[in-house]
Amino acid sequence: MILEVAHLDVIPEKTREFEHAFQQAAPWIAATDGYICHELRRCIETPQRYVLLVQWETLEAHTIGFRQSERYPEWKKLLHHFYDPFPLVEHYEPVFRFERENSQLKVTNG
Amino acid sequence: MILEVAHLDVIPEKTREFEHAFQQAAPWIAATDGYICHELRRCIETPQRYVLLVQWETLEAHTIGFRQSERYPEWKKLLHHFYDPFPLVEHYEPVFRFERENSQLKVTNG
Repeated sequence: MILEVAHLDVIPEKTREFEHAFQQAAPWIAATDGYICHELRRCIETPQRYVLLVQWETLEAHTIGFRQSERYPEWKKLLHHFYDPFPLVEHYEPVFRFERENSQLKVTNG
Repeated sequence: MILEVAHLDVIPEKTREFEHAFQQAAPWIAATDGYICHELRRCIETPQRYVLLVQWETLEAHTIGFRQSERYPEWKKLLHHFYDPFPLVEHYEPVFRFERENSQLKVTNG
């Protein structure tokens, strides 16, 4: 599973409007083959900053399946005008995942 | 649930050594009250870059419970010398989470 990570710096007086638009935009990304789930989180230290995390089955599900689809312009139209500066988008593959299970620390590869 | 996000730029020739040390360091963070799980992911576009994602029950579980503990110097000693530059660490609270469920798009608050 590939994780898309984008730090979104939103124009400060537009955060409420952005959150509303983000909900409207969700179906456009979620209709993509290879889409698993996505979440929006807000930064505690810098409140106009968000992080978008999208789980994809493959890198190409995002870079080709979504970005080259007829749905991507709809996503852009709803969201891209809120960003300043325009975000860097990166993709991350799993290395290790740790969690406690019955007081043992369990490690998996991703 | 609070997500700690840190982008870790590792000295390029030390990535293998860093991944080994990261495994050794895991028990020091995982023993903290309020720790849920953590993962390390490697950037596809910039291979010496990683992201550390830690799920905490509260912000203070990290900032006080871990950083002010006697375990934090052990974590630092194992890991901090791999980073260049030293990472920015931020905390994010949930806004929306979307996932497909039976061909419906389900939204939850975080």
